[in-house]
Amino acid sequence: MRNVSILGIGQTPVGKHEHLSLADLATAACRAAMADAGVDDVDAIFVGNMLSSEVTGQSHLGPLISAALDDGRRESVTVNAACGSGGAVVRQAALAVAAGAADVVLAVGVEKMTGIPGDALTRALASAADIGLEVAHGATFVALNALLMQRYLYEYNALRLDFAVFAEVAHQNAVSNPNARLRDGCSREAYLTSRMLAEPLGLYDASPVGDGAAAVVLGNRRLARCQDKVVDLVGSACVTDTLSLQDRDDPLWLEAVAESTHAALDQADLRHADVDLFELHDAFTIVAALSLEASGFTPRGTAVRFAREHGIHRHGALPISTFGGLKARGHPVGASGVYQIVEATLQLRGEAGPNQVPSPSVAMTQSIGGSGATAVTHALMRSA
Amino acid sequence: MRNVSILGIGQTPVGKHEHLSLADLATAACRAAMADAGVDDVDAIFVGNMLSSEVTGQSHLGPLISAALDDGRRESVTVNAACGSGGAVVRQAALAVAAGAADVVLAVGVEKMTGIPGDALTRALASAADIGLEVAHGATFVALNALLMQRYLYEYNALRLDFAVFAEVAHQNAVSNPNARLRDGCSREAYLTSRMLAEPLGLYDASPVGDGAAAVVLGNRRLARCQDKVVDLVGSACVTDTLSLQDRDDPLWLEAVAESTHAALDQADLRHADVDLFELHDAFTIVAALSLEASGFTPRGTAVRFAREHGIHRHGALPISTFGGLKARGHPVGASGVYQIVEATLQLRGEAGPNQVPSPSVAMTQSIGGSGATAVTHALMRSA
Repeated sequence: MRNVSILGIGQTPVGKHEHLSLADLATAACRAAMADAGVDDVDAIFVGNMLSSEVTGQSHLGPLISAALDDGRRESVTVNAACGSGGAVVRQAALAVAAGAADVVLAVGVEKMTGIPGDALTRALASAADIGLEVAHGATFVALNALLMQRYLYEYNALRLDFAVFAEVAHQNAVSNPNARLRDGCSREAYLTSRMLAEPLGLYDASPVGDGAAAVVLGNRRLARCQDKVVDLVGSACVTDTLSLQDRDDPLWLEAVAESTHAALDQADLRHADVDLFELHDAFTIVAALSLEASGFTPRGTAVRFAREHGIHRHGALPISTFGGLKARGHPVGASGVYQIVEATLQLRGEAGPNQVPSPSVAMTQSIGGSGATAVTHALMRSA
Repeated sequence: MRNVSILGIGQTPVGKHEHLSLADLATAACRAAMADAGVDDVDAIFVGNMLSSEVTGQSHLGPLISAALDDGRRESVTVNAACGSGGAVVRQAALAVAAGAADVVLAVGVEKMTGIPGDALTRALASAADIGLEVAHGATFVALNALLMQRYLYEYNALRLDFAVFAEVAHQNAVSNPNARLRDGCSREAYLTSRMLAEPLGLYDASPVGDGAAAVVLGNRRLARCQDKVVDLVGSACVTDTLSLQDRDDPLWLEAVAESTHAALDQADLRHADVDLFELHDAFTIVAALSLEASGFTPRGTAVRFAREHGIHRHGALPISTFGGLKARGHPVGASGVYQIVEATLQLRGEAGPNQVPSPSVAMTQSIGGSGATAVTHALMRSA
């Protein structure tokens, strides 16, 4: 397998971009990544997207985005793994390089979610769950995560308040990220007094939607303009589980997360202690907790204590959501997994500014589709 | 790049399967392909699908289908290149093997199209075209192809009747294919007297929709149970063009088709004369003609003459649509590209029964998304 490195990164702010089309957002991120990599052309563009065909009636994003970029003709397809599409598209792009089918490729995650009526968006997001077993009985994505959270409180004698720290840390990290959607922080009082979405899951337990795109240029490190900026993709794994929660023996254990973490770290011969930061899929605070546990960073039932004891802070044992995470940077669903890799790369390059984690060598990113039904984990390492 | 071979194939009949779900269809094809390959498990399942999230609200097909197959946990993502999704998913699956990320993988194309109200289906299929430039002005997919056909008649002084042969040959080949949707043949009279869909494109110029799934098991040939049955995937290329026809200098020249054909043949060091059969994307008779021309098998404006002079018949210079093609086997859009590879494999193995082309060594398949916006071409060769 050929080595694959991240040669360039680009992103747009996550927000409400009513005057920018999906192609505008995607090409802005792609151009930024190409400029960062110092490349004028790419062999292929892999597009990560979840909602476009469902909410706008536009599928077939490959030719749309590729032609909008520069009228070039090249390989371009769309990869969909629901909310895990961002991680999945980086993996597919990396496979093309590793296979020797392309030398320099773009992976771009893009989503437009604002301006869609609430009901339609809720319905579209529910397409990540099992339509027959879950959605048909009225479950929304928020409701499914509320059930998980309720179960967690019951099983581990936890309090709703225990989850506040995940929101507080993410929002605090987003304050200094100009690309974040929510930059006002989150006080303990705001967490406790905000409205309930689905008991016990409140507004600040959920991530905000948004429009946005993030892109990475992948290729062999010898093609890098600036060797100092290269970050190697040393591990990559995608694992799926049952689509519906009801088909799992233990809904609080995300086995796909566990297996993809182990596979990604094993590929790179890394141990958990080697990981200096973890951009995890904190679409909901409960998912942050379950991800830390299933990934093996904290024992079961202890993620909230780990977080409360500053484990997840920027100077903690395992910083997470260092630019705000899905929770506060925002969650344009098909793009979030690529944002994670862009942010982890900034950290490893030492270019994270006020968000910098102290001297990281190894970062892990994890993009989840559905209720842990798809998990795509990447291990990134600063170039030796 | 590691060598990739087709170890097994499976398909369901194309038809109206009202009692079978998308997962039922996909797993039936997967099980058939695994039985054919003699494997009990696969490392990954790549799913080709265009319409599910748009018409049923179910995206996230990877975990749905993988868990329905055998409760196994493995890599699984959905690849969407509109009507070219079938070709695209085989390519993505092959890249995973070539990259060394997986040893044995399934690529399955699946689509459910019957039972959807006509307007909704027309709208969903139009998502393969440019929503802003084409669909917003009322263009359907049929209308766009009618414009192409009209232009062809004008440019080359052709007659509508010239296209009848594409329908006649495809329908004739489908008569002996138990998996085909339309098995009644197509007489010259039927072609001429059938109703117009959009002048000059009539009912028999268009392919029928249908429910169906086709699957291939890919891996290294040394993993094959029966070496005699192995077919090698010797060339694979995906190329995109502008999404909308209006952005092209010459709408009758499908440049993505041209470039992907050349790339796929070049990879295998093959010339056009080496190709013994061509499973092309005859979603409409006009697309069959344009594909033959852009692929370089006939000069521009001469595909209809080539077809009329028996070039495309089962014993002609370049047999096409040997099991009926999209035109008569049926066109479950995200699955068609995989059906093509299943059928080409049957031909190369000498297992095509009454549809057998005389002793083929090399087959080419081509899956197109939109109006030539995505072209995925594969070259297959009988094992030495």
